This record gives sequence, structure tokens and C-alpha cells, in this order.
Amino acid sequence: MGRTANHAVVMAQLIIDGKPYGPHPFVVQIRDMKTHEPLENIHVGDIGPKFGYNTMDNGFLLLNNVKVPHAHMLAKFSSVDPKTNKYVKPASASLVYGTLTWVRSTIVLQSGGVLARGVTIATRYAAVRRQFQDRDAKESDIGENQVLNYTMVQVRLLPLLAATFALHFTGRGMMALYQENQKKMAGDVGKVSHTGRGPSPEELFPSTDLLADLHATSCGLKALASTTAAEGLEVCRRACGGHGYSSFSGIGTWYADYLPTTTWEGDNYMLTQQVARYLLKSARSVLKGANPSENDTTQILRTFLSRRDLGAAFDILGQDEDIVAAFAWRTSFLTFEALKHRDEEKNSWNSLLVDFWRLSTAHSQYLIVRNFHEALQSESMVSELGLETTALMQKLFRLYALHTLEREASEFFSSGAVTVRQIQLARTKTVMKLLEEIRPHAIRLVDAWHFPDWVLDSSLGRYDGKVYEDLFERASEMNPLNALTIDPYPNSEVLIKKDEREKFRSKL
Amino acid sequence: MGRTANHAVVMAQLIIDGKPYGPHPFVVQIRDMKTHEPLENIHVGDIGPKFGYNTMDNGFLLLNNVKVPHAHMLAKFSSVDPKTNKYVKPASASLVYGTLTWVRSTIVLQSGGVLARGVTIATRYAAVRRQFQDRDAKESDIGENQVLNYTMVQVRLLPLLAATFALHFTGRGMMALYQENQKKMAGDVGKVSHTGRGPSPEELFPSTDLLADLHATSCGLKALASTTAAEGLEVCRRACGGHGYSSFSGIGTWYADYLPTTTWEGDNYMLTQQVARYLLKSARSVLKGANPSENDTTQILRTFLSRRDLGAAFDILGQDEDIVAAFAWRTSFLTFEALKHRDEEKNSWNSLLVDFWRLSTAHSQYLIVRNFHEALQSESMVSELGLETTALMQKLFRLYALHTLEREASEFFSSGAVTVRQIQLARTKTVMKLLEEIRPHAIRLVDAWHFPDWVLDSSLGRYDGKVYEDLFERASEMNPLNALTIDPYPNSEVLIKKDEREKFRSKL
Repeated sequence: MGRTANHAVVMAQLIIDGKPYGPHPFVVQIRDMKTHEPLENIHVGDIGPKFGYNTMDNGFLLLNNVKVPHAHMLAKFSSVDPKTNKYVKPASASLVYGTLTWVRSTIVLQSGGVLARGVTIATRYAAVRRQFQDRDAKESDIGENQVLNYTMVQVRLLPLLAATFALHFTGRGMMALYQENQKKMAGDVGKVSHTGRGPSPEELFPSTDLLADLHATSCGLKALASTTAAEGLEVCRRACGGHGYSSFSGIGTWYADYLPTTTWEGDNYMLTQQVARYLLKSARSVLKGANPSENDTTQILRTFLSRRDLGAAFDILGQDEDIVAAFAWRTSFLTFEALKHRDEEKNSWNSLLVDFWRLSTAHSQYLIVRNFHEALQSESMVSELGLETTALMQKLFRLYALHTLEREASEFFSSGAVTVRQIQLARTKTVMKLLEEIRPHAIRLVDAWHFPDWVLDSSLGRYDGKVYEDLFERASEMNPLNALTIDPYPNSEVLIKKDEREKFRSKL
Repeated sequence: MGRTANHAVVMAQLIIDGKPYGPHPFVVQIRDMKTHEPLENIHVGDIGPKFGYNTMDNGFLLLNNVKVPHAHMLAKFSSVDPKTNKYVKPASASLVYGTLTWVRSTIVLQSGGVLARGVTIATRYAAVRRQFQDRDAKESDIGENQVLNYTMVQVRLLPLLAATFALHFTGRGMMALYQENQKKMAGDVGKVSHTGRGPSPEELFPSTDLLADLHATSCGLKALASTTAAEGLEVCRRACGGHGYSSFSGIGTWYADYLPTTTWEGDNYMLTQQVARYLLKSARSVLKGANPSENDTTQILRTFLSRRDLGAAFDILGQDEDIVAAFAWRTSFLTFEALKHRDEEKNSWNSLLVDFWRLSTAHSQYLIVRNFHEALQSESMVSELGLETTALMQKLFRLYALHTLEREASEFFSSGAVTVRQIQLARTKTVMKLLEEIRPHAIRLVDAWHFPDWVLDSSLGRYDGKVYEDLFERASEMNPLNALTIDPYPNSEVLIKKDEREKFRSKL
């Protein structure tokens, strides 16, 4: 919109006879089709430089008494009757959020790949880069150690490697749920084909039974997945040491361009209120006992209630199913705690926002752990991956889950899901052992993401490991700045003594 | 060095008669003084674009059989006798690290101000920006709420506001310790004046008693302080929502330029080994009972040992001194745990790196909490600030300490420093109450940092609150891109239909 578009879809307050009906979408012509200059009473322009994403032509727009024809209101869900001037409400308010649910699911699906790009670069470079001798190395071990052999590097990169798969399978699970629901709905209106280009008209009407669950799930997972990917990329960049700061690492720009994802389609902190609201509502309906729609959320809440007076005894270090159950327990515990604060103690909504954010994060972590676990249980997955790779994937599942569990330790023990001793063991034994077991497979696991060098655009992340050759080629040979001879001292006659940049000029 | 310098100080392996003596500094001429072209056998150039800090002329340098005269070795600490060709060792190995200790202390001292720039911008903007109505707002409360009134915003910004002061007082404390030590040393060699320009020759010889403690302290605090500042700036940027992504927020570039601080002068993860090594050494000497040098570290370790079999009972929510004691207890507990893993269980150094990193972080958090607390106890501080401001500062101290404590909850309870109930109360009651109490003073507290608008260079952080006017002025009126009329469609005759950038040209 900044410099290019002639039309814009404007979200504007709909006012009929002085009464506001909330923001609605209108198509508005903003520039002349021939001169491409803004139309009268319209002020439009580029918003200026940003931290990244600068190739996107983001604009600002001010409309001052601009007339928009009736037909230009996008009236799929709500409309205004041109004859009576009456407002026609959408069939269901939540239908309007259908597109956002789809967009958020896409963000979840993509987050694994987004993060994998940084993990690929950092892991490959950590296998090429050698620094220091292992303090306990034998006399015969000559030379410096691969950085990836240090546990302090492993504990930063390998849980993120596990997260790439966890997020990927979760995104796939969410999309499957979304489409399964579409099919159910389509039973009435005929078959639905998903094109992948965006939601088709039919796809905007998922079953209302699952719709609320899907909406909440997509909000919580969008927030957690995009935060994990964005912050994980910066962890990868720093794990590359000083060279990570070079543009030739390929991580910095990718990170900066991805950052808006933590803010758009619902700010990652704001969204957590949606999740909490849904969980509180589900908890209330479970407590009442009268709950027509049975789904996973109501199931885990019911399970928790039935076990609450017996306490939990999850074998998180022995049984994968128990890990999932421990995450479900923590979500349920925090849900009923929040419900107590709100309904019994009558605390203000504002005073509970931090609790809600914690609750949403806990629930979303549960969803990721459950989805990752379920994906590895499916027969088709096992037959596709083979037994050996499936076993390795299960280790990645455990690493993701237990690493998350020990970082969130205080919620797990205060909910009674696990003992302090289990957390200590997870931290000092199990996670460290998993790092050691996964290390030999790390390079093959990032290679599995199959990024072409051309996409990574990274000296450090080259598939062939020729890191330093490529870094030198770019810095020394391809860098036009090095074709200048500069003499910046006060008594110099000229600033530029020699200019050989001609050889870098395009031949076109 | 990339394009400008004619001389470089090169850290190179010193080899005498085939035997290596480690890296030493040499002054090497790299370019011709007249032509400014590299000398023979020297390949030097700019390293190419970076994630930030691009005004710094960082270069690469390759020397191939370059002869360096004997006098060009910087021989303050170690030298080579030109007559005998014998290597002369430094008087004490640790003296060589003196400069680094000073540089790291400076990073600690600056980190508070670095972070304060982002906190100032985000806090001011959060007071100007209004979004949504409070869900529990009274009918009479018309209009949207200041974003800074939401607890979810407060819990992100106010602990960082507290951190700016915590880091500042810690930096001052460290510098005072450093200089006090200089004075002691100077008792022998005359008075020392600290110029502020860098360490004077005398300053490079601090008392060896305190030197090891200073070295470890500076390593741990450099890592924690720069990580806190860098990551805090990004928290501030995101707290500004979509506008935080604009270059006109003033946070993005500042963050990107500061990021190398987490890597240089000792990578923030690598440095933690130095701290752990020192703490293990101190613990061993305390256990032996024969410890000539008494300092704060040996004191807290001794106190812990004497109380270990009685357990702790710290009134962290009632007494500020007990908060400091709880942090000291956790450090000591983790130190003796690490010592057991290393000395008794004979675990490899590599397998303990993650524990060491945790230990160093814990110790550095203790140091910050202790320094902040001590600063507020001094009579000169109270008389300078007045009683009211001191009481507010004490709230900031509590917020910093208890917010840190609840984020690191699992280490605090597993060390037995506090009970689970205390952590729950700190999280749900005390911290939330502190946020509420500090909120009314937030703007005055950031104003106390006294950044001129010119330095902040931020539309969002303007002192006069004219955020949107300034944002619009920069985006619309000062943005040369908006002087172009563009028609990028396939059938257009020209891409640029009108070019009015002339009015933006410099008059010079």
C-alpha cells in the first residue's frame, strides 16, 4: 500500500444512523488508475524503514470524508440491507474468526521450518568449528575439539533441533484437525478440496462443535510457536560466536524478517487471554457436568478432577505416555487455579493476565508434546521412517518434553505433577544423556530438513562444510568495499586514493 | 582495520627455537604510509556487512612470512631477551588479565544505561498508547486504557526498570572495589589517579588477594549483565507492539548494535567456566579450613557450611537482608553440589558445563542483589535520594530480587533456601503488589535516567509524549520515498511517474 496499490481493504467502523457496529472491511480506491497519485482526501504513503522486512511495501493511510459505495463493503458475514438500511448480523460471531484461525494454523505449521533454518546453520557450523581442547582430553587427542561436542553448545542447539520437529508435527496435527472438521461440515454441502492457497469459502465454516477448541488452540500455539522460532533463531546466531554476527551467517536477516510474526495476527501476549477464556469456560462446563461437546480439553479437565483427591504419580522418566499426562495435569491444575481466582475470589481480569499467560503457555506446551507423541505413535509414520529413525525421533520427543519440563519446573512440582527428585533427575541425568545420544545424529537430522545452500545463503551453514573458504570469498573477493583504497587521515590529499569497483559493476 | 588503519596490534603465537609460548601482542605495519595499499605478503580488508555495528571498520588480516622487529613486541608483561633469546615470563599470570577485568567491569557499569534506553522508550510509549477497555472497567470509565495499566505489560517492563538500577549500582560497586584495590596496591608505589580513559599502568597491578575474586566477579557479571541488557531491549521493543518494529522506535538499531557485547570480551557462555572454576577453588580452600584470603565468597561458603545441617529459614517476603541471604545460600549450595560432581564423582569437565553455567548465573544474580541492597543501605545514598525515593528504590530492589527468584524458583526450593509456599506467595502476591505500587512512579523513574530526545532518537519515547505526531512527521513528511510516484504494473510506460526527491537533497 505504501507506494504500489491502487486499492486497499480498509477495516473501518461501520456506523448506521449514528450507531457504531464495530470494524468492518471495505474496498477503497486510494490512487488514480492512470496517474497513480492519491485521490482527493486520501493521504497515503510508505511508513519508513523497519527493523527488517523492508522489501514489504507497508503503508499508512488517512481517509478524510471519502465516499465508499455500498457494494464495496465486503459483506460475506455481515451486511447492510440497501433497502431498509438495516444491519444484518453474521450467522455466528465466531465464523468471522475462521480465516484468522486458518492463518494462525499456518504460522504454527511454518514455525518448525523457520527455526530449522537457523538450527541447520548453527549445527553444521558447530561441527566444522573447533575451539580449545577438552579439559579432560587424553594426551593422544591432539588438536581442538568440535564445538558441537561441548555440552554447553548441545544444550542450546539440540533442544531446538527437537523443537523443529515438535512444531512441525504439531502444525500438521492442527491442519489435520482443521480439515477433518471441514469434511464433517462438508457432509451437508458437498466435498471440500483444500487448495493450499488459502481457505476456500466452504473452509470458512468449520463445525461449530470444534470451532471454539480450534480457535483457542490456534491462538495459544501461534503465540508459543512463533516465540519459540524467533527466540530460537537468536540462540542459534549466538551459538555461532563472532561469525554469527556477520551477514554471511544468514541468520540475522532471517531473524529480523521473522520477528513481526510475534506481533501480527494477534500479539503473542494478547492472544493468551483467548486461550485462558476458553479454558475457564471449559472448566466451568465440566464442573457443571452438563457438557454436550466432548473434546480433548474437556477430557483432560475431567481426568484431573477424577484424580485430584488421589494425586498424580507419573513415571515421566520411564514412560512417554506419562510425560504427556504430566503436561495435561499441569494445564488442568492451572486452569482450576485460575478459575478459583476469577470465580470464587472475584479477582479482576487485569490482575490475572499474568496467570492467564502462564496458563496459555502451559496448555500450548501440552498440545505440542501431545501432538509430537501422537505423530510418533501412528503406524504410517513408523512404516515411513523405519524403526531406527522412529527410535531417534522418540529421543527427540523426550528431549523436547523433558527440557521444557525442567525449564518450567516450578509449575510442575507445585501442581503436584512430578516430584522434586524427578525434576533433578531429568535435569542432571536424562537430558544430559539424551544430548549425548542425539549428538552423533545431529548433522543427519538437520540435513533431513533439506535446505538447499541457495536458500540458506549462509557461509556457516554450507552443506559441504567449506565454511572458511566461503566466508573469505564473500568478505575478501566479492566485497566491493575492498576495491577502494582509502586514506582518511587529516593531511591526506584525497579520501579515495584508488577506486577499482568497476570490476564489480553489473554487465547489463 | 578493514579500510583505514596503517598499523595493527596482532595477537600471534610466540615461537622461540621451535617452542610455542602462546599468543602475544605485536605491533605490525600493514599498509604503506603513502599509498595506503597493503604491504607485501599482507592481505587485509573489510569483513563485509554485519547484523549491526556497521559503522565500525572491522577487518580481516592475513600475514604470510612478515618480519616483525623485536621492538614491536608489546613487552609490558612478558618479553624476549634480545641478547640471550630467552623468554621472560610475566611476574604473575593473572596480571595479564587485568585489562580484561577492567573492560568487563565497564561493560557491567554500562549495561544499566544501555537497557534504560529501551525501558525509557517502551515505558513512555506504554503510558501514551491506549488499547481496549479494561474488562472490569466501570460504566463511567469511558475510552481505552493506557497500556501501562495492564499487568501483562507491567510484568515485562517494570522488572526491567528495576534491573536498570540494579545493574547500575552493581557496576558502581564493582568499580569501587576495583579502585579500592588499586589504592591498596598503590600504598607501595605511590598514589593512583583514575582518569576514566582506561587503566593506567599502576592500575594493571591490583592486589593479588582480591584479584582472583575481581576476575571471577567481572566474568560472571559481564555475562549476566550484557545478556540482561540485550534480551531486555528486545522485550521492550516487543512491548511497543507493531510500532516497536519501526526504525522510528529507536530500539531496533540500538539492540542490533549492542548484541556483539554478548559475544566479545569473552563469550557469555564460555565466561561462566571461569566463575565456576573460581568458586570450586574457593570451596576447596574453605573445606580445608586453611584460607589466608578472606573475602565475600569465602564468607558465604563458610556461612553455608556452618548452617547446612540446620537448614535455612529466610523470611524473604518480610526482610530484605533475608532475600540477599537466600541468594547467597543458593550460590553456596550449587557450588558444593558442583564440587561433589567434580571431585567426588569425578565427572568430566565437559559433562558439567551446563551446571557451571547455572552456578555462574546464580552467583552473579546474588552479586547484583547484594550490590543493589548495599547501595541502598549507605547513608550517603539515603541523604542524597531522600527518604521517599529511597523507599521507592527499595521496592525496585524487592521487585528485581523476587522476580528473579520466582523465575529461578526450582533452584531456590531444591537448595532448600525457600519453601514452595514462599515462591507461590512471591509470584502471586508480592510481585503483583509491587507492580501496582511502582506503576504510578514509572514515568518519573525512567525520566530519572535523563536521556535527551536527541539521544533516544525515538518517536515512541519522546519526552513530551507527542508520539503519533512525530511518527507521522517522519513517515510522511521526512521520508524521501514518498516523493516518488510509482506505477509498477506490467503495462505501465515508466516505473517512476514523478520524482520530487529534489526537495530532500542536502543544500551543501
